[in-house]
Amino acid sequence: MANGDSKLLGAQLGVLTSNGTASIAKAEFSDIVPIRSIIVRPDDDWSALAGQQVRVGGWVKTARKGSKGSRFLQLNDGSCLGNLQVFVEADKVDLGQLARTGVCVVVGGVLKLPPGDKEQKVELKVEKMVHVGPVDPADYPLPKTSLPLEFVRNFVHLRPRTCTISAVIRIRSALAHATHIFFLERGFLNVQTPIMNCSDCEGAGEMFQVTTLFSEGEKLEKDLLKNPPPSEADVEAAKFIVKEKGDVVALLKSSKASKMDIGDAVAELKRAKENLWKLEERSKIQPGIPHKEGKIDYTRDFFGRPTFLTVSGQLQLEAYACSLSKAYSFGPTFRAEKSHTTRHLAEFWMVEPEMAFAELEDDMNCAEAYVKFMCEWLLEKCHEDMEFFAERYDKSCIDRLRMVASTPFERITYTEAVDLLIEVVKNGKEFENHVEWGIDLSSEHERYLTEVKFQKPVIVYNYPKDIKAFYMRLNDDSETVAAMDVLVPKVGELIGAPEQVHLILQSILILERGLPVDLYQWYLDLRRFGTVKHSGFGLGFERMVMFATGLDNIKDCIPNPRIEGRAD
Amino acid sequence: MANGDSKLLGAQLGVLTSNGTASIAKAEFSDIVPIRSIIVRPDDDWSALAGQQVRVGGWVKTARKGSKGSRFLQLNDGSCLGNLQVFVEADKVDLGQLARTGVCVVVGGVLKLPPGDKEQKVELKVEKMVHVGPVDPADYPLPKTSLPLEFVRNFVHLRPRTCTISAVIRIRSALAHATHIFFLERGFLNVQTPIMNCSDCEGAGEMFQVTTLFSEGEKLEKDLLKNPPPSEADVEAAKFIVKEKGDVVALLKSSKASKMDIGDAVAELKRAKENLWKLEERSKIQPGIPHKEGKIDYTRDFFGRPTFLTVSGQLQLEAYACSLSKAYSFGPTFRAEKSHTTRHLAEFWMVEPEMAFAELEDDMNCAEAYVKFMCEWLLEKCHEDMEFFAERYDKSCIDRLRMVASTPFERITYTEAVDLLIEVVKNGKEFENHVEWGIDLSSEHERYLTEVKFQKPVIVYNYPKDIKAFYMRLNDDSETVAAMDVLVPKVGELIGAPEQVHLILQSILILERGLPVDLYQWYLDLRRFGTVKHSGFGLGFERMVMFATGLDNIKDCIPNPRIEGRAD
Repeated sequence: MANGDSKLLGAQLGVLTSNGTASIAKAEFSDIVPIRSIIVRPDDDWSALAGQQVRVGGWVKTARKGSKGSRFLQLNDGSCLGNLQVFVEADKVDLGQLARTGVCVVVGGVLKLPPGDKEQKVELKVEKMVHVGPVDPADYPLPKTSLPLEFVRNFVHLRPRTCTISAVIRIRSALAHATHIFFLERGFLNVQTPIMNCSDCEGAGEMFQVTTLFSEGEKLEKDLLKNPPPSEADVEAAKFIVKEKGDVVALLKSSKASKMDIGDAVAELKRAKENLWKLEERSKIQPGIPHKEGKIDYTRDFFGRPTFLTVSGQLQLEAYACSLSKAYSFGPTFRAEKSHTTRHLAEFWMVEPEMAFAELEDDMNCAEAYVKFMCEWLLEKCHEDMEFFAERYDKSCIDRLRMVASTPFERITYTEAVDLLIEVVKNGKEFENHVEWGIDLSSEHERYLTEVKFQKPVIVYNYPKDIKAFYMRLNDDSETVAAMDVLVPKVGELIGAPEQVHLILQSILILERGLPVDLYQWYLDLRRFGTVKHSGFGLGFERMVMFATGLDNIKDCIPNPRIEGRAD
Repeated sequence: MANGDSKLLGAQLGVLTSNGTASIAKAEFSDIVPIRSIIVRPDDDWSALAGQQVRVGGWVKTARKGSKGSRFLQLNDGSCLGNLQVFVEADKVDLGQLARTGVCVVVGGVLKLPPGDKEQKVELKVEKMVHVGPVDPADYPLPKTSLPLEFVRNFVHLRPRTCTISAVIRIRSALAHATHIFFLERGFLNVQTPIMNCSDCEGAGEMFQVTTLFSEGEKLEKDLLKNPPPSEADVEAAKFIVKEKGDVVALLKSSKASKMDIGDAVAELKRAKENLWKLEERSKIQPGIPHKEGKIDYTRDFFGRPTFLTVSGQLQLEAYACSLSKAYSFGPTFRAEKSHTTRHLAEFWMVEPEMAFAELEDDMNCAEAYVKFMCEWLLEKCHEDMEFFAERYDKSCIDRLRMVASTPFERITYTEAVDLLIEVVKNGKEFENHVEWGIDLSSEHERYLTEVKFQKPVIVYNYPKDIKAFYMRLNDDSETVAAMDVLVPKVGELIGAPEQVHLILQSILILERGLPVDLYQWYLDLRRFGTVKHSGFGLGFERMVMFATGLDNIKDCIPNPRIEGRAD
């Protein structure tokens, strides 16, 4: 039986709820027990665990000395925020080496309820040391003190051992889970849109190019060093041989030689010509990037033309929505922007649903339901990690999730939003960016609307056509397009969304913006053949993590942040 | 309540099972009803649907004439393989235009049980035409006849409207769903590993390079056309001014002028020098790709060094496993291989789990359980699509899923596998590739083992160290490494998997293979600091789709195939 939702809950809660007893869920495919299944107990009752034999593994967070040279280790295995207290007697192992932050230990022992200890509900008394992965504290870059996030960012491979980043990864994983469940439950198909593309969704913007020209050039250079190209003299010599062989053929023909003799001579001439052609071709080879008529010769690149990393899977998703009704993608997208802000990454993940038979209002309903679903999911499944973020980073983050989960989103048009901002400017509010109809709302405007004015998520819709992409449907006013953005407290724009336009307008818009029509012909086909209203949106996944955790820097919201100068 | 598994089942079965009546599940966020929820009924009873008013949308597959000029349309919306028969009377609309393959229609009407019609369990009698998205049959490339897959591959944006590709997309979506459920239920965290990297997992292989040097070069070229660089005369003139200003300062100083006058003159000299410096810098600018000492100057590239698309997220996943115990990724990977086979893509998706505290045997157990889980999932959730593939492409595909789901996988060492192959060669079996200890098993060997010899999945483990990557653990025999591959009928290698090695050996291996140690220092850190045994594997997602569907060409198993010369 493939479906195992009770098992799913069991794994999340750390107990097998099916039989009602406080048994401990062993990790599958391993002989250890996740620490979560010992210390996270929804019934707050650890008494049934006393006396049970378990084996656990994890990394030492802190250690303190006990009596008779024994040690209490705080062991974390990432399955949850909390640590299991592990008690090791002096005779077990070199305790000095063991009691260092970052040491990996696998131990077997018996669970006990420490009397009178309010902090520790349950601890493990070690009977067997199975494995110690030591650490030289002189080298280990993450000592036990609390470290600034900017500092741990330099140790991106070790930072998941910190409380903050491990909690971020658990929140990300939960949000990814919620995303798949939300869309799959609602009949969306999960479609993996392509990463490398010859056409560009936005028709502009900073894109990363994908190429094999550099490596081909290097290979060629090495090859030319090993087998140097023919010299001019080589080519001249080959030409001379062609002439000679030609003369022989002419002579034989004029002297009416036998067919066989002429045939042999012609064959020799042909070989000489082939040899010359090869030499000439090889002598033309230039090391480095191939050029043709002063431009880079992309016909020699892997895909035969300039190819870029995707900035959005939306156009391809539309093809799927216009066949399969509902599709969504969850994948990486790329922008080669050199902005060093706390809100931009060169590589980030996007969730993009697309629905046929749906208009902008359906789209708003879907976006609102999806954001609420994620908030509810975190409140329900990630209580402990959310408490941690509330305590350490943003005391309002849990209340924010509750508010967003339970409050209907405000919905206002772009025109209403601008009018409202102009009004508050009149009343003395100062913005860095000037407000007038036609501007792209900046982050400060968005955050004012959602954080100050409405104090809840705000959907702004019907944007001026000139500030949005070519593929959006023009409204009857001819000035605005059926697009919407979802603004939320803490991050501003969380979701951006167009409703798709119809064919004729589409072609005009592509031409107006000077985009290469041939590259977009496939896209126009979707409008020519069996077209229908469809709409969708894009949610920046790392923005959602920022929103949930209250972290200020998006670089702490993704496993391996990529920004200008950093891809290590 | 975020968890909604009963809703999930409901959506999949097309009925709301909670109340037990045969109500129809409306699409959320839209006023239409998915066709699946009308025609797919596990109880085979459509009688309760008669008389219900619904609105549906979809694309016409075929049409036939009824009495009095009416039409019967076969409508498909991608929610399932089957079509809904839609009956339109002559007065409703231009029926000639409507009854063409590819036309999109949205219609409202009443469900009826056609008497005596065995093919159609239920049909829709149209009362209202809501929308028609026409098709010009002269242009539409996918007529109603059955089309070869090679042909529809040229219309990658329209091919999800074919039965085969829409079924592939549903199978893919189900497999992705199964993957997330399998790992999340078992306590793995979903980690999105980076796509752009300065270091390369395998240390070799054809990789795509990511760059902004071409676009920067183009921008510069345009800029230089608009603002030409300074001429030599400009620079000379600026030098002359610097000299003049210098002379003035010298004169003032020697004539003991006032401090203020000297100060002014010095300031002027400084400005002149700055101007000269700017001119000199600008005159040095060269259009095109920046070079330094004859080589491409990657310090000017976006990440400051050569950067490549990932070939595997495994090394980064290890960092997460060595912090959080269990992690998995599901993302795109890239190989710039120019092989035009039916089994290779330049862009494909990989599922990669990684577990700390786990050895090769745990890894085998996990891989076997995962593959079985996916097979069970498809048998349970994708019955209709699997029947389609069995009928059209591979009559054994359902039996194969059943066999894999229920049969323990054979487990043999590489040495045993080679002995066995040598034995069958002795008995007259011919392979294209020679068999001896030390070879990398080729596809024909793998398929012989799993399809002919054992007729079930085979796990081959303990491979010769020289044919595997640097990061694998050496066995006690010093000849083989703790690695395993899972071979399945139809595709051969489905899963490849190493068990990770310890620090010291690791460094030696990196050095032995001539890899740049500084780029791998972070990776070695994982072995230096709190190391532990860990293992994982990689499953090629498109291979799994081939295995499940029985399709012969991997290009039909992914939404947008990328191969040499094709990224459109």
